[in-house]
Parts: sequence; C-alpha cells; structure tokens
Amino acid sequence: MKNYNIQFDKNGRLRHFLTIEGLKRQLLVDILDTAESFSGVTAQSIKKVPLLRGKTVVNLFFEPSTRTRTTFELAAKRLSADVLNINVTASATTKGETLLDTLHNLQAMHCDMFVVRHDRGGAAHFIAQHAAPHISVINAGDGRHAHPTQAMLDMFTIRRHKKEFAKLNVAIVGDILHSRVARSQIHALTTLGVNEVRVIGPETLIPCEVETLGVHVYHDLREGLRDVDVIIMLRLQHERMKGALLPSEHEYFCLYGLTEEKLAYAKPDVIVMHPGPINRGVEIDSSVADGPRSVILEQVTHGIAVRMAIMSMVLSGSSSIPLSIRPPGMAEVPKTQEQLSGKANSEGEII
Amino acid sequence: MKNYNIQFDKNGRLRHFLTIEGLKRQLLVDILDTAESFSGVTAQSIKKVPLLRGKTVVNLFFEPSTRTRTTFELAAKRLSADVLNINVTASATTKGETLLDTLHNLQAMHCDMFVVRHDRGGAAHFIAQHAAPHISVINAGDGRHAHPTQAMLDMFTIRRHKKEFAKLNVAIVGDILHSRVARSQIHALTTLGVNEVRVIGPETLIPCEVETLGVHVYHDLREGLRDVDVIIMLRLQHERMKGALLPSEHEYFCLYGLTEEKLAYAKPDVIVMHPGPINRGVEIDSSVADGPRSVILEQVTHGIAVRMAIMSMVLSGSSSIPLSIRPPGMAEVPKTQEQLSGKANSEGEII
Amino acid sequence: MKNYNIQFDKNGRLRHFLTIEGLKRQLLVDILDTAESFSGVTAQSIKKVPLLRGKTVVNLFFEPSTRTRTTFELAAKRLSADVLNINVTASATTKGETLLDTLHNLQAMHCDMFVVRHDRGGAAHFIAQHAAPHISVINAGDGRHAHPTQAMLDMFTIRRHKKEFAKLNVAIVGDILHSRVARSQIHALTTLGVNEVRVIGPETLIPCEVETLGVHVYHDLREGLRDVDVIIMLRLQHERMKGALLPSEHEYFCLYGLTEEKLAYAKPDVIVMHPGPINRGVEIDSSVADGPRSVILEQVTHGIAVRMAIMSMVLSGSSSIPLSIRPPGMAEVPKTQEQLSGKANSEGEII
Repeated sequence: MKNYNIQFDKNGRLRHFLTIEGLKRQLLVDILDTAESFSGVTAQSIKKVPLLRGKTVVNLFFEPSTRTRTTFELAAKRLSADVLNINVTASATTKGETLLDTLHNLQAMHCDMFVVRHDRGGAAHFIAQHAAPHISVINAGDGRHAHPTQAMLDMFTIRRHKKEFAKLNVAIVGDILHSRVARSQIHALTTLGVNEVRVIGPETLIPCEVETLGVHVYHDLREGLRDVDVIIMLRLQHERMKGALLPSEHEYFCLYGLTEEKLAYAKPDVIVMHPGPINRGVEIDSSVADGPRSVILEQVTHGIAVRMAIMSMVLSGSSSIPLSIRPPGMAEVPKTQEQLSGKANSEGEII
Repeated sequence: MKNYNIQFDKNGRLRHFLTIEGLKRQLLVDILDTAESFSGVTAQSIKKVPLLRGKTVVNLFFEPSTRTRTTFELAAKRLSADVLNINVTASATTKGETLLDTLHNLQAMHCDMFVVRHDRGGAAHFIAQHAAPHISVINAGDGRHAHPTQAMLDMFTIRRHKKEFAKLNVAIVGDILHSRVARSQIHALTTLGVNEVRVIGPETLIPCEVETLGVHVYHDLREGLRDVDVIIMLRLQHERMKGALLPSEHEYFCLYGLTEEKLAYAKPDVIVMHPGPINRGVEIDSSVADGPRSVILEQVTHGIAVRMAIMSMVLSGSSSIPLSIRPPGMAEVPKTQEQLSGKANSEGEII
Repeated sequence: MKNYNIQFDKNGRLRHFLTIEGLKRQLLVDILDTAESFSGVTAQSIKKVPLLRGKTVVNLFFEPSTRTRTTFELAAKRLSADVLNINVTASATTKGETLLDTLHNLQAMHCDMFVVRHDRGGAAHFIAQHAAPHISVINAGDGRHAHPTQAMLDMFTIRRHKKEFAKLNVAIVGDILHSRVARSQIHALTTLGVNEVRVIGPETLIPCEVETLGVHVYHDLREGLRDVDVIIMLRLQHERMKGALLPSEHEYFCLYGLTEEKLAYAKPDVIVMHPGPINRGVEIDSSVADGPRSVILEQVTHGIAVRMAIMSMVLSGSSSIPLSIRPPGMAEVPKTQEQLSGKANSEGEII
C-alpha cells in the first residue's frame, strides 16, 4: 500500500498531525468545522468538556516556547486531559539517555499524546514512526519543516472573515526561507484552493524553486500586496541579521515592514495576520498591528479551539463532540466517518 | 465619575484586587467573612469546591516566589480552576515581545484571571488598566507598593484571635521603608479601625512622613511594644546590609530582633506574626518564632482561604458560596450585593 | 513501645513509605496486590479514579529527576489528586529559610503528602519525623540509602513473570556500593523470601560486609549469572569513572556489561531488569536491553500502578479500591486490615 501516510491509521483515520502536506481538502475542512464547534466551548463560562478525561498529554518541548506550550496546555486542560510539561533539555537526556529511550519510557507510562516541538525538521515524524500504536503525535513545530496547527488556526481565522477560500488572494510576507509556518500555510492554502498564494520577501529569504509549491514570488511589497484579501506577516528572527542575509532592521522595515501606506495597496477589507510574537517596527508597524485590519489576537483565540479540535480528532478518531457532553447552545456540526478518512497519499514525507 | 476606582466594575462590584488603599471597611469585612467560609473547605478531607471550574488562572510572575505562587496555585486548584504558571523572564518577553503583547495574547486565550507579581510598583495596576473586560487581576506583590492579599490574611489571623479590631494596638517592626507588606497592612488596619498602629524601626528604614498614614513611629522596640496586642515582624532583606542602611545583622538583632525578653513588654496575650520566610536570629529569635505567642504558621494556613475568597469574589462578583455546592457542615455567611459594592473613591492610585 | 516504626501510625497502619527495611512480608504482598488492582486503571481508556480527589500531593525534589517526578505526578493525577511540583533548590531555601520552615509552611497549607527526593540519606525520614500528623511522606530516593517505590515496582515486575518468589535466584549487577536501588531491592527480595540474592560487581563497588544483608557476592559476571531467574542491572554513574573506582567504561563493559553471550549463562527464561535510564554499551548491550528477555519498559509501566497503590494506602490507611469507584471490569482484591497492619520492628533506622 504505497499511498499509506504515517498520519493515518490502517482504517484511514487521522492518528497523528505532523504536516499539512498530502492531506485532503475535506480533512482540512473537517478540522475547521470541528474547531468551530469547540470555539463555543472556549467562549462559555465553564470552558471545559470531558472529551479527553483520563487521557495524558505530554508537552515534549526540545526547544523552549512558552506561547505555543501554553496554547496546547490550555487546549488539553479544557478537554479535561491531564498534562505533563517536559522540557527535554533539562531531563533525562542529560543523563545520556537516547531520545528513543525517553519516548519509550513515556509511552510505557501510558501517556496518550505527545505534542512535540523540536529545532530539527522531521523530529515529530521520527517520533511518530517509533511510537506505540496507542500514541498520537502532534507536531508543534519542527525546525524549518512544518507547524501545521499554526497553519490550521490561520485557515480558521481566514474562513471566519472571508467565508470562501476559492476567490482569495493571499500574501505571505517576510522570511519564507526559514519559516516552518509559511511552509505549512502554503500547503494549507493551496489544498483549500485559494485563487492565488503570493510570497513576498528579499531574494535572500525566498527559497529557490518555491514556485513548485504553487505560489508566485514578489520582491516588491507594494506590488505583491495589490488586491490581496489576506496578508500574513512573518516574524523576522533577529539571528538573520547576523547571518548577513539582511542589511539592517531599519532597511528591512523600509522595504518589507507593513505600514498603513503599504497596506493601502491591498483590498479595503484585507485582513492582516501574524503568527506572533510580533516585532513592532521591524516587520510590522504598531499602527497596523493594533489597527482595524489586524486579526492577530483573534488568531490566538482561535488557536485554542483549533488545537482542541485536532487533539480530540487524533485521540478519538472522531471529529464531532458527542451530543451527550455538548455544552448547551453549541451548534451541531454533522460529520461522517467518510469525510474524516480522506485517503492519504505518499507525499507527506519529511524533509 | 471622579470617585471611580479601577478595582470596581461599573456596577461597583469588586473586579480586581490591587491595593487595600481606598477600599471601604465593609468590603474588607466581607472578604474576611467569605474567607471564614472557605476556611472550612481547606480543613475538610476533600479540599475542593467547583466555584471556578472551567476558569483559567494565570500565575504571571515577573519576580520569582515559590511560596506566594504556591499559595495562589493551591487556592485556585481548590476552587477547581485550571492553573497556568508563567515565569515571564523565561518567556516570550525574551523574544522582544512587549509586556502588553504578552498580556493581550493571554487574554485572547480566554484566560480569566492574572495573579501578578512584579518588582516594579504599579505593575498590577498597569496590567489591570489594560486588561479586557473579562479579566480580573490580583496583585501578588508589586515593588514596594502593595501586597494586599498578604495584608488580608494578616487581618484574618488577627480577627481569629482578637475578635474586635477597635481596641487593638498593633506594632509593625522592621524595614517599613522597603516593605509592600507593611504598606498594605497599615491601610488594612486603619480601615478596619484599630485603636493604634505603631511602626518600629531604625530611622533609616522608616519612610519620611509615614505619620500621614495614621501611624505612630517608634525607634525603641521595647517602648514601642508596650501594651500591644499584635506584633507583626517584617523580614529583613539581606540586601539592605550592603546598602549601608544598617550596621550589621548582629546589631540589628540586638536592637530590633524580637526576643522573649522584649516580647514581655507587650500584653500577655499578644500574638506574633511574620509574613515569612523568617530569618531566624536576624529579626526574630527562634524561641519566639516557635513559641506559644507565634501564629506564623496559622497565617500560612489562612492565606489559602483568604486567597480563595478574593479569587472567587473578583470572578463571580459574589462573596458567598452557593448553597448547592457548599460542603456539608460549612457555615453560611449571609451577604448582600450592597455589602460587597462599597462605593470606591479616587485614592487608590498607584505610587 | 520499642518496636515502633516511624512508618506506621499508632494503630499499626502504614502512614509513610520510607524504606523496605523492617517491613513484614505480608505488607509487601499487600502492596503488590493493591498495585495489581491499579494496574487495570492505567490500562483503561479513562485512566482515573477519584481516590485522592481534593488531596494535595507535593513533589519535593531537592535533586532533579524528570523521570521519577513524572511517574509520581502521573500516579497522583490518575488518583485525582492535585499536584504541586517544588524544586527546592530554586525556592525559598535560597532566601535563607531552613528546610523545616519550608516543610512547616507546606503543611500549614494543608498539603497531604510529600514525595521527597534528596541527595542525602535519611532526608525522607527526617521530614517524616517532623511532619504533622496529617502528612504522609514517600521516599522517592534519598542519597545512597533507599528507593523503596523502585524496589516495589521491581518486585511487582518479577511477580508478574515468575509468580512465586520462593524458588528464585536473583542477581543484582553493577555499582552496589552507591546504589539506593540495590539496597532497597535486597531488603525486598529477602523479605519476600527468594531462594538466593547475588550481588555481582568489582570489589571497589561492593560494600564491605554486604553479606550480612543475606546476599552472596560474586566478582565474575558469568559465574554469578549461572542459573539465575532474574538479572537486575544497575546504572553506572559516569561520576564513578572520575573517582578512580573504575578503570574505564570500556573495561567495565567487557567485565560487567550484560551481553547476549553472558546472558546465556542464566536460565533460558531469565528476565532482565534495569531501573533506568540505561547507559547503552556501558552496563548493558542494546541487543539485550531491547531483546526478548528484557522487561525494562514493563517496569516503567508497573511503576505507575505501584506508586498509585502506595500513595492511596498511606493516605487512606486502606489498600483496596472502594467498590463504589472501582472502574468496570476491575478485579477485586480482597484485603483485611490485619493484613495491612504488619507489626513493625525497630530495624527501620536510617543510615
């Protein structure tokens, strides 16, 4: 069965969530629909559903990240799971234990899910490949490879504002080369069938042959923003300055920083997104980040619901909240197993 | 509405708890009464009530403190809240994100309460001023400004032993100048109407014009302790020695350390308090700290109930535990919204 | 009452779990039986029983250990307790507070159990001696003295595979001298009445007079493994190399590393155990650690059930899960108070 994708079990149900690449459009839509139903949970007074009660979620962070760890911890707790935070640099690996030994130990403790963050691309895939059958792995960012839950919360935010993907022009601006976020966003946007994806940035920060992913490259920000519906700004890592890839923060801001003036080239109802944390005055001007077109904080809010959706889907193999525990007033999102299964293909390889 | 105090919402209900200054006596009494009802919860076998189930409490500590963080974490968990511990020095602020961006992100995740500890006076007020309407902020100590939950647990401990505040003489001993605890205690004691508040310490550690707060200043410990009902010893920070404000720990102990001999100047039924952690042999002799007049560990116990009370009051806008979830045998503390509201004034400004 | 053992309360019920030394065989069997019943809990879909709901368990770690802390945290959470993790080096002790003050503060907060890890032998006993009557203390490893929960999970693993202890020959291999694990295992194995306990290692790593504990000493690994049913490999601390107690890791592996070749000297159905984390290629060859005779990961799994059993026994004074909360399908393990009490003797002194 050549088409088998590690993200699915033998019955074609989503078991891990490692990358958007190779997923079917219907599965992405299912995730968005499920997140929609959880969106009500996080807004209500008692933000808790017992879907993962008695399950143990391990935040396995090989790279520090308070923000991402916090959103997964909140999502897991609101699903009533028990959460273990393990900062791996500070743990048994310092005693000379191998990564696989650490993993095998954690799964021997009957943990149910690993949320993995690692500075090496492919780490989450590697862990998923070696995980016991009862374990689900969620990629919370691996090197420059992928950050699929971030991309899904971005899609959720776009759908909330723009309804239909088919007519949208979306610009991703900044350091595409080093961005796992951009990579996952491109896969999600093209899978969901937007009209056009543009990547905008200096030549040094655009990967060669990025056009093969189905995007158009722009080096001029104003030109690239013309008539777009959605602008996604990327965070500029300060380290890039040292690496001689960029002249200076000031010059970067002049050319690629999003200001009100440049924003005017986009459609009037454009939305501005950013995965956070933002560098004010580097890639984005404060007046834009805090302005009426910004949906940056909405993204954070939706991040909880989208992660709840993905966590519950991979653990339950189902994408709907059972009626019995649905909070009052929560909209029903009808769903079939067929919609969920989405036969996988072999493209989901790690880079 | 000039009298508006940031601690109250538009309906005059307690929303934040930042400082004792400017609060009405009846509100302080309400807090003590509510804490009395929670006191039964922490003593029973199952130390849990579902009052804050589904709420998310964030311990936002910009200054490390295991002890204070632990009491808030326990109080929140015993109210069935989910707790996030965020050590801010180690978080996204190191990535150049501003404090306000961190806050906005956390509230976008639908957190309900920030318990803030900061080494700068006014930090909790600042956060409260910029918080979304659904957020409550509790000051867990800001610079030299205030530590209001500590002061309230001290008041609770005093009331348990002395019943009426009106006749009490209370001495606060030590480094008044640098103590946020002393400042909050002075406001609480004068608001609750004790007979006399005395502050005792060397001239270098007593703030100028402290008398304007309604206290009497003593530089001689024996004289100052004469006929007092309550002695509150303050912790001497070791850093003060280096700052040339004090000659030596030994000389400090001779003059201001509480010993059995000096204790004899107070009333026979005096109680001895200390916010902890104590420096044995610096500001207090072990025989006193562990002796029959010491209520230092009782303070720690009451700290949980008082913090449960304040947390539930700011989040629910009500100070009574609903009958339906009241544990068996718990005393009812009748209460009206009027008692809670306590029209605020404009004095609650940060320093 | 000379025979009084600090681990028991006045009614002879287990209150602390500090050392195996001096415990009766029947009590060890009771712990194993209780763990058997919890074993079902950790395997089921909802891995939670409400036995310790509303109780507060404090992981009080004076020595870092992610692995052991994690197993206790999971065990406590699966019993529905609230868990506080306190890394003592980073806490109030740095402010000059004494260990006892830290303890008295935590118990004033109505915590119920301290799980103590310390690099000094006797630390858990010391804490138990000074604990308030409502506190239970569990030793999670103290210096070279004892690690009794590890020994009990080892016994559980042995019983699962070998049924009866009476006929077993058990070899413990490696650095016996510095191993708290070995010490507790020896007490457990002799108390449970195995046929023979052998300790195998270089002269520099075998304590003088270890024979008085009822074991036989071997310096030749092949000879010592002849006809054993159980091999327990100990972790070799890298620090030992520097201490001139050992020539080199390579030479150690040649002499005492467990390989397939050496394993052949044992019985064909021998099981290989290790407390973890393992040093591949130092004390054990990967082909053995990952081979069919290895039960190393089973030990980890059983560690949760055994710790749940011990935690619930010391807090409830009972070793059975009440019928009312027993999960469906969980086997009943009949048990009387007599079996649990096990009159203690005076041998349980700390070293």
